[in-house]
Amino acid sequence: MGDVRAEDGYALWMRYLPLEPALAADYRTHLGEVLAPDRTPTQRVAREELERGLSGLLGSAPRGHAAAATGPALVLGTPQSSTSIAPLREELASLGDEGYLLRRTRMGGRQVLLVAARRDIGVLHGVFHLLRLLQTGASLDALELRESPRLRLRVLNHWDNLDGHVERGYAGRSLWDWQTLPEWRDPRYTDYARANASLGINGTVLNNVNASAQSLAPDYLDKAATLADMFRPYGIRVYLSARFSAPIELGGLKTADPLDPAVQRWWRDKADEIYARIPDFGGLLVKANSEGQPGPQDYGRSHADGANLLADALAPHGGVVMWRAFVYAHDVPADRATQAYSEFAGLDGAFRPNVNLQVKNGPLDFQPREPFHPLFGAMPRTPLMMEVQITKEYLGFATHLVYLGPLYEEVLRSDTHARGEGSTVAQVLAGMAGVANIGTDRTWSGSHFDQANWYAFGRLAWNPRQSARDIAADWAAMTFSPDPDVVQPIVAMMMASREAAVNYMTPLGLHHLMARGHHYGPGPWVDGGPRADWTSVYYHRADRNGIGFDRTARGSNAVAQYAPAVAARHGDLAQVPEPLLLWFHHVPWEHRMASGQTLWDELVGRYSQGVRQVQAMQATWATLAPVERGSAPLRGKVDAQRHAQVAAYLRIQRREAQWWRDASVAYFQSVSGRPLPAGEAAPPHPLAWYQALQFPSAPGDGR
Amino acid sequence: MGDVRAEDGYALWMRYLPLEPALAADYRTHLGEVLAPDRTPTQRVAREELERGLSGLLGSAPRGHAAAATGPALVLGTPQSSTSIAPLREELASLGDEGYLLRRTRMGGRQVLLVAARRDIGVLHGVFHLLRLLQTGASLDALELRESPRLRLRVLNHWDNLDGHVERGYAGRSLWDWQTLPEWRDPRYTDYARANASLGINGTVLNNVNASAQSLAPDYLDKAATLADMFRPYGIRVYLSARFSAPIELGGLKTADPLDPAVQRWWRDKADEIYARIPDFGGLLVKANSEGQPGPQDYGRSHADGANLLADALAPHGGVVMWRAFVYAHDVPADRATQAYSEFAGLDGAFRPNVNLQVKNGPLDFQPREPFHPLFGAMPRTPLMMEVQITKEYLGFATHLVYLGPLYEEVLRSDTHARGEGSTVAQVLAGMAGVANIGTDRTWSGSHFDQANWYAFGRLAWNPRQSARDIAADWAAMTFSPDPDVVQPIVAMMMASREAAVNYMTPLGLHHLMARGHHYGPGPWVDGGPRADWTSVYYHRADRNGIGFDRTARGSNAVAQYAPAVAARHGDLAQVPEPLLLWFHHVPWEHRMASGQTLWDELVGRYSQGVRQVQAMQATWATLAPVERGSAPLRGKVDAQRHAQVAAYLRIQRREAQWWRDASVAYFQSVSGRPLPAGEAAPPHPLAWYQALQFPSAPGDGR
Repeated sequence: MGDVRAEDGYALWMRYLPLEPALAADYRTHLGEVLAPDRTPTQRVAREELERGLSGLLGSAPRGHAAAATGPALVLGTPQSSTSIAPLREELASLGDEGYLLRRTRMGGRQVLLVAARRDIGVLHGVFHLLRLLQTGASLDALELRESPRLRLRVLNHWDNLDGHVERGYAGRSLWDWQTLPEWRDPRYTDYARANASLGINGTVLNNVNASAQSLAPDYLDKAATLADMFRPYGIRVYLSARFSAPIELGGLKTADPLDPAVQRWWRDKADEIYARIPDFGGLLVKANSEGQPGPQDYGRSHADGANLLADALAPHGGVVMWRAFVYAHDVPADRATQAYSEFAGLDGAFRPNVNLQVKNGPLDFQPREPFHPLFGAMPRTPLMMEVQITKEYLGFATHLVYLGPLYEEVLRSDTHARGEGSTVAQVLAGMAGVANIGTDRTWSGSHFDQANWYAFGRLAWNPRQSARDIAADWAAMTFSPDPDVVQPIVAMMMASREAAVNYMTPLGLHHLMARGHHYGPGPWVDGGPRADWTSVYYHRADRNGIGFDRTARGSNAVAQYAPAVAARHGDLAQVPEPLLLWFHHVPWEHRMASGQTLWDELVGRYSQGVRQVQAMQATWATLAPVERGSAPLRGKVDAQRHAQVAAYLRIQRREAQWWRDASVAYFQSVSGRPLPAGEAAPPHPLAWYQALQFPSAPGDGR
Repeated sequence: MGDVRAEDGYALWMRYLPLEPALAADYRTHLGEVLAPDRTPTQRVAREELERGLSGLLGSAPRGHAAAATGPALVLGTPQSSTSIAPLREELASLGDEGYLLRRTRMGGRQVLLVAARRDIGVLHGVFHLLRLLQTGASLDALELRESPRLRLRVLNHWDNLDGHVERGYAGRSLWDWQTLPEWRDPRYTDYARANASLGINGTVLNNVNASAQSLAPDYLDKAATLADMFRPYGIRVYLSARFSAPIELGGLKTADPLDPAVQRWWRDKADEIYARIPDFGGLLVKANSEGQPGPQDYGRSHADGANLLADALAPHGGVVMWRAFVYAHDVPADRATQAYSEFAGLDGAFRPNVNLQVKNGPLDFQPREPFHPLFGAMPRTPLMMEVQITKEYLGFATHLVYLGPLYEEVLRSDTHARGEGSTVAQVLAGMAGVANIGTDRTWSGSHFDQANWYAFGRLAWNPRQSARDIAADWAAMTFSPDPDVVQPIVAMMMASREAAVNYMTPLGLHHLMARGHHYGPGPWVDGGPRADWTSVYYHRADRNGIGFDRTARGSNAVAQYAPAVAARHGDLAQVPEPLLLWFHHVPWEHRMASGQTLWDELVGRYSQGVRQVQAMQATWATLAPVERGSAPLRGKVDAQRHAQVAAYLRIQRREAQWWRDASVAYFQSVSGRPLPAGEAAPPHPLAWYQALQFPSAPGDGR
């Protein structure tokens, strides 16, 4: 149907299309013969990936073993699997179990390119790195690279329900077809593992943190074991989200009290049952006593009691607990943003060694911009993981082009001052968890550009010091074309895109102004309902005189949860960075901004600027249009099918950015009573029109 | 990723792979030059499809216009678009607007093959027919075919909710991505239209009969209009399901009373609004006063009042109403199977001419086997459409191989005796509606073999007298291979598959024994709950002495709703066909069957036979396995990817057929208290084990 070779996005950044002939010829002379072991499953997939990549990129499959050859050679292996690499045993030990080295050298008179590692999985990572070098047109001369991951835990969190619905998912249904598992081993599961392995992601939590106990029942464990079998060669461990009350629902116990011996026995037996099926099972992720989920506090116990219960059951098998810090009390407090810290900071030291506390990047909930979470740096005796959303619940769903690399980078580089200046968030982390944006959509992620967010998450989890811009450039080259005339404008779009969304949604430190429930579109007027801290007015606190949430000592004093240097800067209206102004301060409308404008004029201007930034992305994208629909892409152009879809999505983004701007301006003007700045168009509809819009079928809502 | 040319099922029956060289050469000499107009959208898509098909099948694109050529030619057109075809004007008129002729003849000294029709859409249908002949290896010598559809309305009903969930869908999410419409015109929408046009399907109802009023709101009409624009060249009209109370929910009226002038005005205005966007809009499908849906009876009005309200609004624009007869009262009656007839038979003549009554194939609800619906033949003044399920709600979901052609054929050929012997259901129909089995799954239908049910529905709606076996043979040849060593065993599997499912689920006229709600797996013990007629025990009425629903004059007298000849046969225990025995009769366990066995022994034997029939399908399928995974298919073999998936699904079917047999035997034995026949294995678990199984996440449930 149509052209089967159409660029439908399924191949992600692993398209392996033919390189320019001159470049391909050069690479061929560098690489020569391939010497790669194929005795273990991981050795085989490394070799297969290399063959797939080289035959695609270079136009011909690499030659196989030819023992007596003397020309150049590409040598893969570990000290165990390759006699050529055995001498490097000591050097490789320092790279750890997952690292690798790429080295161009001479061996016994031959030019060789080594992809060497301590373990097979490191070789696989090295193969993907080498392929990336080829895909981006890098030079192989004098190649000398040593890589190992800076973070131990690099995991995806799938918020996938067993019925296939993905909470906050905008990319189709869950990839896991529980109905046809374990019998049907969908080849797509292998492609999923390949994509993750290409980034160094080493774990995946299969099911939603709002968990069904059923996922721990024997038949579902059999299904999960099949996925684990398929992922194992790629170095990816399977984890599950656990429902804390599972001993009641599955085990028929009367309680899930963590101090009850029968409960402890149930979890130990369950762990044994899991590991009998999945010997390298990663562990359990738990959302407890949060948003209605059961937890240890139901029995008057602490989060540490709850986490340690599971940790003790998993420890004999080498498994870990990932315990989420995203909790807030049933009774609405003065400032929800302070609660995770209040609940957990005092528990530092109370957790078993195999407990990881999983902390969202900011103190609230995945907003377009938040300051870093105050727990980072505040729990030196507890391994902390940072949880980010890859799926764009609050960032326009799949149809808005918003590259999240700069968001991740911003928080990773934030200085906690926990151990003096320069103690960045990146330095205090033990791992990163990304809420996946992956589903059955043919593009995997709901849009072509959302693939970049999966990619950036994986690359940053491997090394949180990398630059979001460099990662964008790699991704664009691999996904669209290594042609600089394609890469440069795409990277420019990507790097500007997150600030555009901040501007048209929640500029200047505003937050949580999305519509109720589904979070689709603007809802700065949201008020009432079950909880004040589920409304917008709770967060923006706008009135006739000013706007913003006072989190200084005069207000909720959330600033006091940070190290003194950070607290001093954020708590001072004169020092706080303007992008966080209204997060930390309630400010009069006539406050003078750095631009010289009043806050009111600046706010309206930012909204309009966001719309203009989307228009600029459209203009850039238009320059990449192929001359004729359906023709092969020319130099400096993008293929027709992907160009058309991105262009359509940018039209949606443009329309919705305008909607955000108009609705927000109409609302805030109704509160401030101020005239629009000169040159600013009045919203085309009255406020009530925007407030009346209903989206009962917006995608991805929780269920 | 992997092999992009892998057979993943997306191409359906339009794969157009190269034919055997000798056959291709023969076809090339017959076809020669192609002369085809391309001035209208339908002319263009006909020409494009022909080019796609011929270049795939014959290995080279057909030559274009060469005015002075004298060799053989393939001539497409209508009297308006082609001077060669203009002389056939009168002959073509008798084929109607959608028909066509294929004719091999001589014209001005040239050998020509004509694809001629009265309208462009007929030419497109003719092109698909010609391609089918090539795909199945038919001879083109002396080709002379005249085709026109026997039924006017040939529509799919999508039970798709606006949030993407498909009620009773087992093939992923809704194909319609309302979130990206109208901006993104997914190429898959065009492929959907091509597939339907290839069968002659001429309409599609986009949204669930359990309708949201929102689908008639302006923004959703804009989205539907984009789909209509994409489908129009393929002769496919868009319809919508309407919620009867939309004047209240969308229009702010206080009532939806069909006799209220404001309500009438609202629907007229709504029709005008729809036709302004979609000039060839097909009309509205309504489920009213059924299973909680609003309807005219809420205001004391009749179904005719309700249907005529909408019919009057649509009539000026040429639209139709499809009014569903699937209704049953709030109070549980003696026999739910009698209710549609009781409700509607007396309304014959009361409907406007543009109302079609949509009647399910049987009196209950898409069971593996039901007798034909008694309304067929009973409403001579009302156009009746037959509604069948293509999706397999009650037939094992997507993982069971059950070819529905024989089910459709059985009811179409049933003799209503309405106008004497030989008045088949097929003869009294104005149209057919099929509840679609289509979603975002890469295979479209959730499995490779479920594509055959879409295919068979379309072919039978075009001509209900066709043979299910012939259709299966065409489908197998086009979908897998024209090789007879592939076609023959696949057709054998398909033709036996429906009876296998009847045997392992509901043999001998049993019905509605599936688990509650999701209908996944056996639930003959289902009892209690909100309504007796939503239970299994209501339908099988088994006790220590016997089993079956007495619908004779001694029981509910449902037989009296049929013509006397039918009633006499079905009401007589000596004459009723055994496949319908327990539908019409309550029979003692010791009743002697035609086999000489007792009913009890026969019943248990049928269950076991169903399992053996699935094992036989597995054995047949194993013979089609390619020699090596991943290699190109050999003669008499199926490609590796599809073979593996079908084999995995057959393993699921085998496991679930055994489950059905064991659970059903355990239950009925608990009721009958009888010993198992010699040689029959006892169920491996006690009855309580089967009853305790829970499937909270079974797919496709209503929501």
